[in-house]
Amino acid sequence: MYKAKAYAASSATSPFASTTIQRRDPAEHDVQIEILFCGICRSDVHQARNEWANVMPTVYPCVLGHEIVGRVTRVGSAVTKFKPGDLAAVGCLVDSDGTCPECKAGFEQFCPNWVGTYNFPDKHLGGVTFGGYSDSIVVTERFVLRVPSNLNLAAAAPLLCAGITTYSPMRHWGVGKGKKVGVVGLGGLGHMGVKFAHALGAHVVVFTSSPGKKGDALCLGADEVVISKDANEMNKHAGSFDFILDAVAASHDINAYINMLGRDGNLTMVGAPPEPLPVGVFGLLIRRRSFSGSLIGGIAETQEMLDFCGKHNITADVEVIPIQKLNEAYDRLVKSDVKYRFSIDMASLKSE
Amino acid sequence: MYKAKAYAASSATSPFASTTIQRRDPAEHDVQIEILFCGICRSDVHQARNEWANVMPTVYPCVLGHEIVGRVTRVGSAVTKFKPGDLAAVGCLVDSDGTCPECKAGFEQFCPNWVGTYNFPDKHLGGVTFGGYSDSIVVTERFVLRVPSNLNLAAAAPLLCAGITTYSPMRHWGVGKGKKVGVVGLGGLGHMGVKFAHALGAHVVVFTSSPGKKGDALCLGADEVVISKDANEMNKHAGSFDFILDAVAASHDINAYINMLGRDGNLTMVGAPPEPLPVGVFGLLIRRRSFSGSLIGGIAETQEMLDFCGKHNITADVEVIPIQKLNEAYDRLVKSDVKYRFSIDMASLKSE
Repeated sequence: MYKAKAYAASSATSPFASTTIQRRDPAEHDVQIEILFCGICRSDVHQARNEWANVMPTVYPCVLGHEIVGRVTRVGSAVTKFKPGDLAAVGCLVDSDGTCPECKAGFEQFCPNWVGTYNFPDKHLGGVTFGGYSDSIVVTERFVLRVPSNLNLAAAAPLLCAGITTYSPMRHWGVGKGKKVGVVGLGGLGHMGVKFAHALGAHVVVFTSSPGKKGDALCLGADEVVISKDANEMNKHAGSFDFILDAVAASHDINAYINMLGRDGNLTMVGAPPEPLPVGVFGLLIRRRSFSGSLIGGIAETQEMLDFCGKHNITADVEVIPIQKLNEAYDRLVKSDVKYRFSIDMASLKSE
Repeated sequence: MYKAKAYAASSATSPFASTTIQRRDPAEHDVQIEILFCGICRSDVHQARNEWANVMPTVYPCVLGHEIVGRVTRVGSAVTKFKPGDLAAVGCLVDSDGTCPECKAGFEQFCPNWVGTYNFPDKHLGGVTFGGYSDSIVVTERFVLRVPSNLNLAAAAPLLCAGITTYSPMRHWGVGKGKKVGVVGLGGLGHMGVKFAHALGAHVVVFTSSPGKKGDALCLGADEVVISKDANEMNKHAGSFDFILDAVAASHDINAYINMLGRDGNLTMVGAPPEPLPVGVFGLLIRRRSFSGSLIGGIAETQEMLDFCGKHNITADVEVIPIQKLNEAYDRLVKSDVKYRFSIDMASLKSE
């Protein structure tokens, strides 16, 4: 074991503060990574504030962060894919059983024994896993990803959650050239959705309730912007979409977007409103539409996404902050006051 | 024009009674059919009682019925696929524009200009189209289907709506050998779903709230029956289905069935509850499940379904009635007091 610097919260209402945590020494298959940047995901805020108490109660002190990029500092004797000095990344998963049908099919995120990067039982050290708000992490090689060297590291960090969350359903539902794709909700997830849909060759339409976001949406790669409160504009697009990515995590009228879909069109939720959404069945029968969800992606697909980003030079739009501004960033994130993701420069942790 | 015998209702609260209607003389591309049997669909009841007043108000007098089988009596000069004496069938559609992308792709049911077999504007005679509760009908050749000669005609009639409605989504979502398929709701649609899923080689599980239906479900081809009120039984099957056909037209807890789906599993509604169904988004994110709808099928697929039925000797389980029992049958249908579909023997109309 060794000591690592970290920022932890000691209760649902405590601010994050500097602390020291234990990390395991890298075993045979482990990779030790010096964390250079870590994105802040909306899930981190929910977890910190114990807002998912019913399904995933938070164990305190908690060290969050699952959008991790850094540099390899040590590797175990059996590690073959990484050596010290390599760039490396870790997302939402740090382990799974590796033997179940889901793992074998490359869907580690659906493994019944998956281990999350934070707040999951830590079978090595006891307690729970600690995430990326830290200067170092040790992860089994199978869950460590390669980062294309051309990407800005601060801006690459959010790819590990916001990136794969939006890339995976687009690949699954066949987004590409000749397809008309909608993105609902222009935040951390939505802005990545726009970039991916554009890079995949689709005609991209952003739905937003704020006319002020129009320019930004176009800059991100949207071909059109529809103001969702404008019934005329909405009607013009009814029945015309192949795929819609809905990244809104609050309750909203989902039928308005289902009605935008053409035959065999799919709307995939990547946000998770806490309350059930009322879905009109007639809207699904007509044109054989489908309504579905998607959750991050498997390890192989996450690597595919990173490689795609390398090839197309795609990263998130980030505001880089020192870790001392973490609490303030949480408050701003809740108000959607960021374009479009915070990325913590972990060099700032050295002064703690 | 010529006169045909029919049963019509003159208002939402009137019983059906014998009457005479006008049919057009067959033009160049038309096929005239002597109707031998016509199934009674739950939609007929909604239409007769004007229960869809908001979306499809009923024009009275109405002649309903869209599960029609009979024998060709005359054909227009340009008709090539049928000759007098041939068996023929007509389903829910009697026309479409033939030129839109939906028609060109074989999805006439999604054509913006489709013409329903009843209660749609009749461009030939004015008024609205009259359906199968009649001794004769004239339909353009493109919407007339061939009936395999080995099928019992009375029992084949419901294939034209209940059959295609359940066959189409199963084909679309890949039901076949090695797949685990659920059917919710063992009525006119559901019992056809069981037969098709079984014939397609799937492992078929019927969900029912009535233990009394267990024997019937097994006879129809189910491999297992789950009593939906039994939480233990339900839990045993959680996360294990590839496809579920939901034929329940009333509000019900759809999340209980979505949770039965495995990775990439799909639940398709073929019933249409009037109220929106609350859908929990977490249940969709996990395992990338999808929730969708399906509406009858196109003409080519309806023919494919009939040919499949001929090959596998599949028909509906019907109770054959004379048309004089039509009103009584409606009342029984609303109470689900039929196994599983009424088929009207149109010979009974001769005595009117």
